[in-house]
Amino acid sequence: MANRRLNVAVVGATGAVGREILRLLEERDFPVGELRPLASARSAGKTVAFRGRAVTVREATPEAFDGIDLALFSAGGSTSKALAPEAVRRGAVVIDNSSAFRYEPDVPLVVPEVNAHALARHKGLIANPNCTTAILAVALWPLHQAFRAKRVIVSTYQAASGAGAAAMEELLRETGRVLHGEEARGEVFPHPLAFNVIPQIDAFQDNGYTREEMKVVWETHKIFGDDSIRISCTAVRVPTLRAHAEAVTVEFARPVTPEAARAVLAEAPGVEVVDDPAERRYPMPLTASGKGNVEVGRIRRNLAFDNALDFFVVGDQLLKGAALNAVQIAEHLFLRIDA
Amino acid sequence: MANRRLNVAVVGATGAVGREILRLLEERDFPVGELRPLASARSAGKTVAFRGRAVTVREATPEAFDGIDLALFSAGGSTSKALAPEAVRRGAVVIDNSSAFRYEPDVPLVVPEVNAHALARHKGLIANPNCTTAILAVALWPLHQAFRAKRVIVSTYQAASGAGAAAMEELLRETGRVLHGEEARGEVFPHPLAFNVIPQIDAFQDNGYTREEMKVVWETHKIFGDDSIRISCTAVRVPTLRAHAEAVTVEFARPVTPEAARAVLAEAPGVEVVDDPAERRYPMPLTASGKGNVEVGRIRRNLAFDNALDFFVVGDQLLKGAALNAVQIAEHLFLRIDA
Repeated sequence: MANRRLNVAVVGATGAVGREILRLLEERDFPVGELRPLASARSAGKTVAFRGRAVTVREATPEAFDGIDLALFSAGGSTSKALAPEAVRRGAVVIDNSSAFRYEPDVPLVVPEVNAHALARHKGLIANPNCTTAILAVALWPLHQAFRAKRVIVSTYQAASGAGAAAMEELLRETGRVLHGEEARGEVFPHPLAFNVIPQIDAFQDNGYTREEMKVVWETHKIFGDDSIRISCTAVRVPTLRAHAEAVTVEFARPVTPEAARAVLAEAPGVEVVDDPAERRYPMPLTASGKGNVEVGRIRRNLAFDNALDFFVVGDQLLKGAALNAVQIAEHLFLRIDA
Repeated sequence: MANRRLNVAVVGATGAVGREILRLLEERDFPVGELRPLASARSAGKTVAFRGRAVTVREATPEAFDGIDLALFSAGGSTSKALAPEAVRRGAVVIDNSSAFRYEPDVPLVVPEVNAHALARHKGLIANPNCTTAILAVALWPLHQAFRAKRVIVSTYQAASGAGAAAMEELLRETGRVLHGEEARGEVFPHPLAFNVIPQIDAFQDNGYTREEMKVVWETHKIFGDDSIRISCTAVRVPTLRAHAEAVTVEFARPVTPEAARAVLAEAPGVEVVDDPAERRYPMPLTASGKGNVEVGRIRRNLAFDNALDFFVVGDQLLKGAALNAVQIAEHLFLRIDA
């Protein structure tokens, strides 16, 4: 199967995540036969670069999936809801980056380093997790395997890219306005983000948490196949461009030390331990941007619990938090590699 | 006593905090007789504005404190160590914004809303707390009084101003460089801060925590007069200019609800409850900058503990986190007001 060329549709090909998917398919030499970039009617007719040539973007319609083997969706929940079933009906396997299907029991929600096994039971549709969850899961899973996580408290420092290419442009543009003595505006964001932090990502739920915060709870439970871990999150948008950072506290059931955790993480797939404070080396958006692996550091004993660690994890939201995870899922499905 | 005019020295008068102290002394009509702005030899000869006139900055020497009743120090630990005892010897009361004397048993460390009573036993020197601690203390203390805090977990989002005026200038300048396609540099900060977050503030300790993180533990214990509360902190610098934000989880000994906490905070001095998510109202640096009160919002049940709350607190680092707290201490000492 590894040698068959696949016809691949990328839905949302002109967006921030779509562009990364195209780049990764090329860079990782995914066996693409026909590449079919799809987008809204507004973006149809544009071209995207793939393997040195310009490929014209077509409008995403049900018929656009005829003959497609693999469709990577990253164009928002409503597009996924409308078109992913159409693509599946036409024989494609869909990997969906939206939250539209993540909580459906028969849709696997997959971070390959954690639960590649869940892909076996897919029915044509596989969900890619929320970016914050994917980045956390890669670091938390090996620690959970080794020491059994009981409680997890997460505070996030999320980049503009989580809200798409227009959000990154807004941050740059409005930051420029502030530097010129003008007032920043917020159109993509609920408030101006330039030189500000905003403790709201996505809509508020009745329990006082945002949907973004609850996604970390719901999705970690589903990916880990374990809803006994108690998780609480505060999700905050900060004026960075593309890597999400997370300050994480984990109480464990089994005895843990920073040294033991560091040893576990050093062997964990998808993780780069960056933890040398004396040399000022720790995870940062500046160094994690563009990396496939997530950076983990600041590993230390938490001072408020008896058997708990704190760590700081930073991952490129557009890569492990979105495009890379989706392409890795595709590799697991079609290339039968191991994590 | 309230009607006597006081001779007031401001040490570090040209710095970010010093300038705010001058503004607050004027705005709050503090009974200043002579104002004596002091600074390093390098800044001597400059002028600062006070009550509509330009006052020449003098070099901070031991003799510069002759005849001074009140000296507000904000020029770094080494200046405080060298000169605060000299000022006290000459009869001044010193309120010191550095960490030089905070942990000495006979030096009161004061947030007036919490422990104004500790001022009674001062011996000429009073310490002003770390900015992150002061902002946290104002929100945590009334909740601790009502519900008894057991464990506190804090993740901070700290502004450039915490590192002084040069740091704010560096952030603005380097952000401009990034907008022009150049690479940002970090000279005041250990790494470039523009479009980045840095999980290091101050030096690392043997336990893996930075001094900034440990200050939150040590100083909260001292200010509250209670070292049984277990506190753990992750301190992170973010690219904002002057207000610090903190995501806080508190487990309480007594039964607590978000409604009860909101009611307690609504009556608490120094606190403004900003907690109307449906209207997108929550604490942010954008809205808290320039305010004397700290904003508290996002009050909700923590999902990982049974009797715990989360909240988000934002305070102007230069005001409640530094200059305002120092001036409030001076008011308590000399004007005998109640908190």
